[in-house]
Amino acid sequence: MPEIILSINAGSSSVKISVYKSPNHATPDSTPIQLAEASIEGLTAPPATLKYSRGDKSIKGEEIQDIKSQEDAFRYILDHLTKDDGLPELARHEDIHFACHRVVHGGDYPHSQVIDKETFHHIEELSDLAPLHNAPALSIVEASSKILPGAINVAYFDSAFHATIPDYIHTYPIDQTVAKKNKLRKYGFHGISYDFITHAVGTYLSKPTSDVNIIALHLGSGASACCIKAGKSLDTSMGLTPLAGLPGATRSGSIDPSLMFHFTHSAGKPSRSSSEKMHITEAEEILNKKSGWKSLTGTTDFGQISGSERAEDVLAFKIFVDRIVNYVAPYFTKLNGEVDALVFAGGIGERGAKLRTAVVDGVKCLGFALDGEKNEGSGDEVVTDISKKDARYKTLIIKTDEQLQMAKGVLIDRERLEREKGAGSG
Amino acid sequence: MPEIILSINAGSSSVKISVYKSPNHATPDSTPIQLAEASIEGLTAPPATLKYSRGDKSIKGEEIQDIKSQEDAFRYILDHLTKDDGLPELARHEDIHFACHRVVHGGDYPHSQVIDKETFHHIEELSDLAPLHNAPALSIVEASSKILPGAINVAYFDSAFHATIPDYIHTYPIDQTVAKKNKLRKYGFHGISYDFITHAVGTYLSKPTSDVNIIALHLGSGASACCIKAGKSLDTSMGLTPLAGLPGATRSGSIDPSLMFHFTHSAGKPSRSSSEKMHITEAEEILNKKSGWKSLTGTTDFGQISGSERAEDVLAFKIFVDRIVNYVAPYFTKLNGEVDALVFAGGIGERGAKLRTAVVDGVKCLGFALDGEKNEGSGDEVVTDISKKDARYKTLIIKTDEQLQMAKGVLIDRERLEREKGAGSG
Repeated sequence: MPEIILSINAGSSSVKISVYKSPNHATPDSTPIQLAEASIEGLTAPPATLKYSRGDKSIKGEEIQDIKSQEDAFRYILDHLTKDDGLPELARHEDIHFACHRVVHGGDYPHSQVIDKETFHHIEELSDLAPLHNAPALSIVEASSKILPGAINVAYFDSAFHATIPDYIHTYPIDQTVAKKNKLRKYGFHGISYDFITHAVGTYLSKPTSDVNIIALHLGSGASACCIKAGKSLDTSMGLTPLAGLPGATRSGSIDPSLMFHFTHSAGKPSRSSSEKMHITEAEEILNKKSGWKSLTGTTDFGQISGSERAEDVLAFKIFVDRIVNYVAPYFTKLNGEVDALVFAGGIGERGAKLRTAVVDGVKCLGFALDGEKNEGSGDEVVTDISKKDARYKTLIIKTDEQLQMAKGVLIDRERLEREKGAGSG
Repeated sequence: MPEIILSINAGSSSVKISVYKSPNHATPDSTPIQLAEASIEGLTAPPATLKYSRGDKSIKGEEIQDIKSQEDAFRYILDHLTKDDGLPELARHEDIHFACHRVVHGGDYPHSQVIDKETFHHIEELSDLAPLHNAPALSIVEASSKILPGAINVAYFDSAFHATIPDYIHTYPIDQTVAKKNKLRKYGFHGISYDFITHAVGTYLSKPTSDVNIIALHLGSGASACCIKAGKSLDTSMGLTPLAGLPGATRSGSIDPSLMFHFTHSAGKPSRSSSEKMHITEAEEILNKKSGWKSLTGTTDFGQISGSERAEDVLAFKIFVDRIVNYVAPYFTKLNGEVDALVFAGGIGERGAKLRTAVVDGVKCLGFALDGEKNEGSGDEVVTDISKKDARYKTLIIKTDEQLQMAKGVLIDRERLEREKGAGSG
């Protein structure tokens, strides 16, 4: 029997689960085979809707009732999967061998962790640093440990890939006693995606990952940049939390650290969405949920902004380009100009032809240039080269796949994970 | 009789006054002639000490009693100047024609302002954005208007040079209604120095200021970077306040905007140094006064850090270099590689040979390179070229002089200033 691997990705308003089977005679280099993908969206704006695809079969936007939390969505999808006759490999909960959970903030963890009582408690504790971001996953992790006791539940952290960032980049120039006690440092996020991107570039250029030097941009409703040197993260735009760095759909990105105290007198007070479990200040709520291009234009849809000539949209577009260039250029110098590629990934990175044009134009003096036609077309390939023929450096679009990256991680680390599972339940 | 111009520069613990006379038949291009310079330091760590120089005569570190505020220091220096027999040009208060005051935050003011009741009130209001930075100057401005009613008191703003920064760079992606109401935008500072630097480079390269493209670094206990295109500020590292951007002696520079809420639960509460006139939160106090390399190493003296092999000092040094490169590189791309020079200025910029070496090494792939010998020597010239002979781009040290720049401003803008003075007192 093939082993079933679930990759679970919970957002603030959605849950997405991809189902994979491990190939026969799997090795650490094998690629898991996707069997199905299910997602529920609209948790915060009911009724929620289900999307499902398996082979030729697909459901799009089916309204479902009484699904209000991430845990509800998780249970609903599990039920849907086990009842799908076309998915005989996953007929019972016991068929699930690995359940991979994407967790945004993993503190100092340098790699994935099998979840037992101790690690769960630790993840809960460090989630105080990013409650808005970790809370959705944690509720599913807790449920999954109960519903799937036989499976190996593994946490994959967006921060883990950045564990290699050196001290002079990850240290904030603040009181070091408090910094150490409260674990205040740059962590960085989107690491599962950057891991995928690094491997994809290595494969595409037929070079070992340890030789890959790239400037990677993961641009979605949350956006970040990463400088990858010799296959490892050297610097990234996000910080202690995903708030730092680039602006996003509802996120300000970096601003003057004193700004919020001139924005509202209640910056440090608990926000309305705080609960006993989740401590969020007014300032964090405003900067994470009520800023970004939504605050500039009224929409969170960057595609709409990008296609518009309205003054607010033009301004938001130019702000985003400017802030992206502010990271691409120093990452170029940190790689000493030895750059394999500038990579665009994430929803906006993949679809934003106009944005790519503007960003590459902003760094053209460094030796980047686009082929206009290739930049407009969007293929099905994982890697698409959109560089101009005689450009000094390559520019690539990469269809990053965090779900697949987690499932691949299971095959790569299976020995360690099985050992940790044994130790945790022993 | 020559006209006497005072340039007054008040810091949190010091007051410095330079005395100039306008040359005979002065034109807007003339350079004022320095007659004397006096400063009082140690206001927050009494006894305060006086430094004075006029021609060959100098006083160094003379302890003076009962000088506790900026206003005390201002009155003491005025008294000292008028009583100095070797300075017959300034024997009475009435001899002072212009009193120039360096004011850090000038909001939207695009140039200097003659201070009357109305402008003083406006400057006081906008000082709410940067109370820690404006307060020292404001107390002297108030005193000066009383003591020197016949003089034209002029405010020179560190922010004014940056009035040319375009909207897509000065706008923060936050709620625009609050942003407009509370005047929350990037302003930028050190502008009097950047103005001096721009003119100095123009003179040195024999080109009009409007053709000068430079990446300028003003590095002192407060540090910033500026991208100057066609003689105008296009971008700068400081923001709404001087806190944003590079770290300084006691200043964190940019950090994750949510960091302070994980540093202390009282981030938003008034700090102990708040008064009825000055509203400062705990967070702003900590980030402006208790962070930076002081928090990393225990000293505010970057020279000491730079010469040390102790782990904390090495870390602080590397952090500063890293953060500087993060601005030099994007400013290079914003100038599309058409760069007249990379400029080092300010106390650390002038004296930090090791720092310059490390920063230039960090951007060597862009075409900057130093001449080791020239970098070590320190001349008396305003501009010293320290570039390697075959370097693609120049690197310069500039002895910036904010005092002189203000006095020059008087000769340039004299007509406008006299008109404004007439209107204000009319």
